[in-house]
Amino acid sequence: MREIEPFTIAWEEETGSIVYIDQTLLPGRCEVVRCTTVEELARAIRRLEVRGAPALGVAGAMGVALAATRSTEENLERFRVEVGRAADLLRSTRPTAVNLAWGIDRVVRKVAMAVSVEEAKALSIAEANIVAEEDELTCRRLGAFGEDLFPVDCTALTHCNAGALACRCWGTALGVIRSAVAAGKNVRVIACETRPLNQGSRLTCWELARDGIDVTLIPDSSAAYLMRKGMIDLVIVGADRITKDAVFNKIGTYMHAVTARHHGIPFYVAAPASTFDTARTEEEITVEERDRDELAYCGECQLAPDGVAVLNHAFDATPLDLVDAIITEIGVLRPPYAESFRLVGKRENL
Amino acid sequence: MREIEPFTIAWEEETGSIVYIDQTLLPGRCEVVRCTTVEELARAIRRLEVRGAPALGVAGAMGVALAATRSTEENLERFRVEVGRAADLLRSTRPTAVNLAWGIDRVVRKVAMAVSVEEAKALSIAEANIVAEEDELTCRRLGAFGEDLFPVDCTALTHCNAGALACRCWGTALGVIRSAVAAGKNVRVIACETRPLNQGSRLTCWELARDGIDVTLIPDSSAAYLMRKGMIDLVIVGADRITKDAVFNKIGTYMHAVTARHHGIPFYVAAPASTFDTARTEEEITVEERDRDELAYCGECQLAPDGVAVLNHAFDATPLDLVDAIITEIGVLRPPYAESFRLVGKRENL
Repeated sequence: MREIEPFTIAWEEETGSIVYIDQTLLPGRCEVVRCTTVEELARAIRRLEVRGAPALGVAGAMGVALAATRSTEENLERFRVEVGRAADLLRSTRPTAVNLAWGIDRVVRKVAMAVSVEEAKALSIAEANIVAEEDELTCRRLGAFGEDLFPVDCTALTHCNAGALACRCWGTALGVIRSAVAAGKNVRVIACETRPLNQGSRLTCWELARDGIDVTLIPDSSAAYLMRKGMIDLVIVGADRITKDAVFNKIGTYMHAVTARHHGIPFYVAAPASTFDTARTEEEITVEERDRDELAYCGECQLAPDGVAVLNHAFDATPLDLVDAIITEIGVLRPPYAESFRLVGKRENL
Repeated sequence: MREIEPFTIAWEEETGSIVYIDQTLLPGRCEVVRCTTVEELARAIRRLEVRGAPALGVAGAMGVALAATRSTEENLERFRVEVGRAADLLRSTRPTAVNLAWGIDRVVRKVAMAVSVEEAKALSIAEANIVAEEDELTCRRLGAFGEDLFPVDCTALTHCNAGALACRCWGTALGVIRSAVAAGKNVRVIACETRPLNQGSRLTCWELARDGIDVTLIPDSSAAYLMRKGMIDLVIVGADRITKDAVFNKIGTYMHAVTARHHGIPFYVAAPASTFDTARTEEEITVEERDRDELAYCGECQLAPDGVAVLNHAFDATPLDLVDAIITEIGVLRPPYAESFRLVGKRENL
């Protein structure tokens, strides 16, 4: 076990492996796990040991690099087929997050360009590391753009974990908060626990407390009431996919958007350009449904009677008309989004 | 241990004790506990072994009867002081639920009217049993009025547990659902888990599944998304206190009211007249804040890091302009409530 903080996920050069913080053990333990096969990584992604849209982009890229460098295949065509199979396995682990597929595809494209197996291996590691480093730069840029939206003294509500743990470091929504704090602003954070897997209480509270940022935990269902009592100045969340018409993010995001609008509170989304999928619309996207036991149990504790049906959507979709701004590394996008999304498209095509 | 089902709480004549279902053990075990002192009962109420506004009314009444019948004091004045002290202890356990104080006061008034200790004891048991029996009648009447609001085929969203377990039996919000099912309507229930103590997953799912009513469990935060997807036809909840301007109920109720209005879905409150406190306004009412550990732990499982602040309001307040109807045993009250509340006042003064 190696100390990788402040990185959530990294490529370990000496062993040719991926190392990551197992987020299912937080807040009790901060343990770094080494992963040497794509199957292990796929399992870790499914179990949410690694999670968060940008971190999944890095994991996807590194996963393909892992498959490439560990392959013993010498024939380039068969090598590409093998790497392609690994890419498909990784892509299937989380259907909603677009960044995962984006990170996978970046390295797959390098493998496709290579003229030898050896070159493909070298290019895949290089590209995976570039994806990781870009992720940090992206978060810091996005943070700098976003903190302009924060008053000098404010309380920000956030949902789930769009933080350092959801990226290589710094974070998207929490990155904006970090940038605002770094700029000397007085920011208090209200963290929704984020049922059923409690990424808010387990991860957001952990990483903000670690950094000395003022954080208070609430049940998801009390956010609207605190808005009514004038205790929230703005809402900021991350995103797993942004289509032409909606923001897909952790279940509960839509509820915050509706209640924020009801109270005249700004609702902001912070997400890198890699989250955008503006060729598609909301109805084309599959929302992942997860296991009933996530709601029926909490650890050993049984919360629901056996046999009762459970509906456990991992994400919801928030129509863009409820979103006041989308903070990206290119700048702050404002309605009408049909126009501002063109900027992201241009950037993506570079 | 005696089987008291279908009663959540009852007076056990043979032993002069209160017996109740310990709701903290559900859904794993359905255990009936015997309670022989007011201190035990106060502790059980604080720990939410007995909870739910109407059941607290019955518990309050029976608690005073318990204090009265177990007293060894022979002097009437000193006896009244002793019973008054027990009443104060019980009243302090849950500050927001008005029914608790209402049930306590009904028996205290009988004690005050009695001309001897002996008569006071007899009257107190009789009155506590009347409170309990009235509670059942009230729920069944309320159910009959309320089921008229249900389409013949519909999906109803509910929050927390305003069911048989929150009353002597039948329930308020779930009583209306039971009445609709009994009338042959095809009702599907979506139960919000109701963080942090999961009365929805533990209690509502348990009692509806027991009765063969179609129930599906969801996280609180996904209700708005299901409304958006057209999967909810109406919302029905209970109440802990209804003031001149607002409905106090489990934290999360206000969020459902706001999101229901946003989607044009009717939002109904089901509550007996004993829940009304229309001489007061929202701002005069103390909202109980509960222990941080309810959010920081789930059983043995640590959900939040040590030291992180927690804001754990037990209730919220929903302004009446978001409430489409209040279903009582007197009838269905509709806006303008300033007028329809007069009916309840008249009834209360009888």
